[in-house]
Amino acid sequence: MARAAREGIAATSRGEHYEWMAVTGAPLRLHDNRLLPAEPAVRAIAHRLYEAVRDLPLISPHGHVDPRVLLDDEPFPDPATLFVTPDHYVTRLLHADGVSLEVLGVGTSAISEQESREVWRRLCEHWAIFRGTPVRYWLEHELVEIFDVAVRPSAQTADMIYDQVAERLSQPAFRPRALYKQFRLTVLATTDDPSDDLSAHAALAADPSWTGRVIPTFRPDRYLEPALPGWREAVARLGEASGVDTGDYAGFVRALEQRRQFFIAHGAVSADHSHPDVRTDPLEPSEAARLYRAALAGQATPEEAVAFRRHMLLEMARMSVEDGLVMTLHPGVRRGHHTATAARLGPDTGSDIPIRIEYTDALRAPEAMRRFRAAVTETVGFSRTSGFVDDTRAFCSIPARHDMSRRIDAGVLAQLVAEHQLDEEEAMDTAVELVTKQPSKVFKL
Amino acid sequence: MARAAREGIAATSRGEHYEWMAVTGAPLRLHDNRLLPAEPAVRAIAHRLYEAVRDLPLISPHGHVDPRVLLDDEPFPDPATLFVTPDHYVTRLLHADGVSLEVLGVGTSAISEQESREVWRRLCEHWAIFRGTPVRYWLEHELVEIFDVAVRPSAQTADMIYDQVAERLSQPAFRPRALYKQFRLTVLATTDDPSDDLSAHAALAADPSWTGRVIPTFRPDRYLEPALPGWREAVARLGEASGVDTGDYAGFVRALEQRRQFFIAHGAVSADHSHPDVRTDPLEPSEAARLYRAALAGQATPEEAVAFRRHMLLEMARMSVEDGLVMTLHPGVRRGHHTATAARLGPDTGSDIPIRIEYTDALRAPEAMRRFRAAVTETVGFSRTSGFVDDTRAFCSIPARHDMSRRIDAGVLAQLVAEHQLDEEEAMDTAVELVTKQPSKVFKL
Amino acid sequence: MARAAREGIAATSRGEHYEWMAVTGAPLRLHDNRLLPAEPAVRAIAHRLYEAVRDLPLISPHGHVDPRVLLDDEPFPDPATLFVTPDHYVTRLLHADGVSLEVLGVGTSAISEQESREVWRRLCEHWAIFRGTPVRYWLEHELVEIFDVAVRPSAQTADMIYDQVAERLSQPAFRPRALYKQFRLTVLATTDDPSDDLSAHAALAADPSWTGRVIPTFRPDRYLEPALPGWREAVARLGEASGVDTGDYAGFVRALEQRRQFFIAHGAVSADHSHPDVRTDPLEPSEAARLYRAALAGQATPEEAVAFRRHMLLEMARMSVEDGLVMTLHPGVRRGHHTATAARLGPDTGSDIPIRIEYTDALRAPEAMRRFRAAVTETVGFSRTSGFVDDTRAFCSIPARHDMSRRIDAGVLAQLVAEHQLDEEEAMDTAVELVTKQPSKVFKL
Repeated sequence: MARAAREGIAATSRGEHYEWMAVTGAPLRLHDNRLLPAEPAVRAIAHRLYEAVRDLPLISPHGHVDPRVLLDDEPFPDPATLFVTPDHYVTRLLHADGVSLEVLGVGTSAISEQESREVWRRLCEHWAIFRGTPVRYWLEHELVEIFDVAVRPSAQTADMIYDQVAERLSQPAFRPRALYKQFRLTVLATTDDPSDDLSAHAALAADPSWTGRVIPTFRPDRYLEPALPGWREAVARLGEASGVDTGDYAGFVRALEQRRQFFIAHGAVSADHSHPDVRTDPLEPSEAARLYRAALAGQATPEEAVAFRRHMLLEMARMSVEDGLVMTLHPGVRRGHHTATAARLGPDTGSDIPIRIEYTDALRAPEAMRRFRAAVTETVGFSRTSGFVDDTRAFCSIPARHDMSRRIDAGVLAQLVAEHQLDEEEAMDTAVELVTKQPSKVFKL
Repeated sequence: MARAAREGIAATSRGEHYEWMAVTGAPLRLHDNRLLPAEPAVRAIAHRLYEAVRDLPLISPHGHVDPRVLLDDEPFPDPATLFVTPDHYVTRLLHADGVSLEVLGVGTSAISEQESREVWRRLCEHWAIFRGTPVRYWLEHELVEIFDVAVRPSAQTADMIYDQVAERLSQPAFRPRALYKQFRLTVLATTDDPSDDLSAHAALAADPSWTGRVIPTFRPDRYLEPALPGWREAVARLGEASGVDTGDYAGFVRALEQRRQFFIAHGAVSADHSHPDVRTDPLEPSEAARLYRAALAGQATPEEAVAFRRHMLLEMARMSVEDGLVMTLHPGVRRGHHTATAARLGPDTGSDIPIRIEYTDALRAPEAMRRFRAAVTETVGFSRTSGFVDDTRAFCSIPARHDMSRRIDAGVLAQLVAEHQLDEEEAMDTAVELVTKQPSKVFKL
Repeated sequence: MARAAREGIAATSRGEHYEWMAVTGAPLRLHDNRLLPAEPAVRAIAHRLYEAVRDLPLISPHGHVDPRVLLDDEPFPDPATLFVTPDHYVTRLLHADGVSLEVLGVGTSAISEQESREVWRRLCEHWAIFRGTPVRYWLEHELVEIFDVAVRPSAQTADMIYDQVAERLSQPAFRPRALYKQFRLTVLATTDDPSDDLSAHAALAADPSWTGRVIPTFRPDRYLEPALPGWREAVARLGEASGVDTGDYAGFVRALEQRRQFFIAHGAVSADHSHPDVRTDPLEPSEAARLYRAALAGQATPEEAVAFRRHMLLEMARMSVEDGLVMTLHPGVRRGHHTATAARLGPDTGSDIPIRIEYTDALRAPEAMRRFRAAVTETVGFSRTSGFVDDTRAFCSIPARHDMSRRIDAGVLAQLVAEHQLDEEEAMDTAVELVTKQPSKVFKL
């Protein structure tokens, strides 16, 4: 797919012709060498390394795709809902450029075709503001590789691109399961609430027509933070789901242990933790029990709530040692920063910002990925890293993100080869291991 | 000007010949490709981008040049006073290399010609210590481009360069207004005390022979920090300037609002704020009033003074929302760090050091500018930045600073083009917008 | 030495042939251009700069080699003890890859030949995990340049390399004094306890057959931290060594001053300080005396212990001003982080990790060195830096570390030349000064 576009020839759709060049002089192409180092000798090495991994299967051991997307296998919604409205990286920049979040459909449960088309026009009109950002890099990759778009988004081309993407989305080859295969995904981890019954995962596993692998991830954040609204209701739900009385601390711990086992039985390999910090200060069991009682009674102070969470994070580590769930940490995100927006439009509407410590976002954008890879490798080599984690809820962006990562790693390795710090054969071996052995080993897949 | 020097031919002054090469073998030239990426293909792109912006007018929406420089249009003083004595980046390194600040004229109101020549000799003798620093980059740019100097500073060439610069400074073409035109400046913002009567700005605006644009900037720092010495006198002056009684908090706020209107009437487009941090913690009006009373009575604790300042910074934001003055923040500078030097020689004598958060200085030196541009662009693209802010009190360094910025941006954009993240035509468009549309839009010029 | 290997020809040992290529297809060579920038024009400049400094003598003004190594001039021990067991950078990564610290001989006073061979095999089997790390870079340099190894470590080649290194180590040319000469060392600073009698230094100085220069460094950390275990015993020892009664604070200060004079008489030029932070908060003498008494009585609180140390760090600065010992600071290391490992295996067994502020490690790895050099130079130029500090206890790694530094500096300078920020002749001058004048001046050698 999109081979033609990659070679710089205007794309022709199956069955009909889009006469792109008649509309606009700006083609949209993905250059074969994009993101590879510019110096010719280094680029040549990087290209050889990249070629060795470009078509290898994708392992996605940590992300936020809804499992029902693959269970139901319904067509993806309209282009705006697919690419714009739920992506706060996109809406944030459009908003900063003067487009209201409401016009972009943020906070709306469903938008009409007319509204979707309007949102899409806003995106295309403001295309220039995304220059140099990874958002643009991913969107271009998706438009070209998945949807055969061969013209740069602009006010003039917005409707035409909308039509082409919408038409594609209606075809069977663009349904989630077909794309899962086309993307060469071999495993896709979701992120799930400990009280979730994992029925979507169970139904997928029981479906004889489904040959992929979608696994849950245990994410107990909200159960460990008594200061968050709804915490008491959450631990009550946890009691129901586990069949263990969470009326006291011992039951709470047992219920968490029980749900981890339930997740493991449904294929989970890791637990994900995102808190304001990663401190782990153990409490005496009696003190932990006291704080839990106070929290249930709505009488825990903010300091006590933090102390309880730091204690529980260590408990999570203890459980991981015992039951083997790989522990991933994503600290340092201040959620709901802009109180008014969060209240008006709900979570994930542009109101999360990174605070002091941040690892995951450091992996996102090309320059940041290069710095991360170079800095971490100097300290621990390549063998201590898990390989790329796409960490996305945007299913269609998964190949673009992995491809970016493979290009960046090819470039970093090529630089090491060009500076004679590594033989090319070793670099080749490392490039392949980073997308095969490393994620499988680290996530016990 | 300086075209000859740029082409590597020994400069000849108007009317007399300087036989540079007879004195020393080290010419001083500005290479046309300086600061552009070294890789030939990237450099070629960068050079095309740079050529598109190199001669565009300079917009300087934030800086510290004294408006009287342009009002009075007096010749600039001697070379040492122009280039060395008031520039703590220069004097700091000379001092670290063993030259006393007193010998450099720091803290002296005026120096004799003989003293100036001595200071200049110190600079030239220690030229090697500036290798790799932006200070040297700017000084070289100014010496070559403005003063036609074509020989590298050294003990041997010090007097000869001094003579040439001094001779140029006596010519009409080197007076401030002539240089303003020659630099292609279109707007120059100063930084002004809220109690300032802006008479220099008014006189300039009323001068029919003046065709440039010099605008004030509202900088209320000292009025918001009750812990600083002289605060009570400052708010008293504010009362006089505004005609509003600053004897209570409500009057203080009204006086500030009044002075902002006065600044706006004189062309101001922004307010500048530099405090140890950028926290904004609102107080109840009654509490703010109480702290203000305590501060006036000299009875505010250090904690209360900080609380008042953090409250007032939010008030400044509120006023900016209402009256439209763009708010610039320059947090994280510890002023007067070396107490003894500051007491002996006064402010801005090498005793300010950056603390934790620092944005402005991060924009100064080439490598830091590259990192800043790359990192910020990955997060917000180019459209959320204001373009370059020279932030200088050294009038003659303005073109050198803008030229450095244009070269750095050309290089960063060329890299994106070379890595196929951006089409060259888009990069060209962005390069031009960064020196035209962006500063005009962000600063509402 | 190793000229043949450098030219890519399989090494031949003196007297016998190692048929490397028959065993494995992977040669081990040090490319002449390693670590130099990849862009051909920049590399050519960098190579010229590097050639100018590559063979200049090594000045090592700060490190941790034991002076008895050179006094006794015994052959170095077996390959594992030389290269693996005491190097926590090596053992840490092997441990992370599943090799137990006990198997690596960590915490064992001496290992048998059979054990050494086993440790060596583990290193060679896990060679791939060191890709891209400075550890591998240094080990390769040492194996090739010192021991003529010409084959890449692997399970297959482990024994053969072991044999070759062991055989070399038994030859006179590989004893410490012979290597000192071969490395072209001109001065080597050790790090010494203030109570040390410096007998090894005295004996070396008195040895007519010794023509090198080994100087002590005054490191009083443990005497300034009353909270550390063994502090009271340490100050008692200090009293004995100095002949000054350390029973009160005044005596303690006098004893430190006395030992500094003793160190200076034995050639010391600097004092080294490594504490969790570099705060210096002076105390009134009476308060310092009170805290000292409380500490001696075992009654100082943790806060008082910290206050005393911060006061004493300023006292150390005061003494340096008076007696001229250069003060080096290495703050921000959390020692004994993994309590269990430190208790089981002793200090320096992988349990130190850097905390917030860290300068020395920032100088270690190539990318970090490049960033450090570029960032520091932009602020202060080259003249404010001391040149490279190897900071190692691994004697044989000293040339590899200095060579890495010279290559990195050549590359950074070449980049400045290629971007026309520096003339090549100035860069050459700077490259040479960084390994000659700068360390001599900063450390008063």
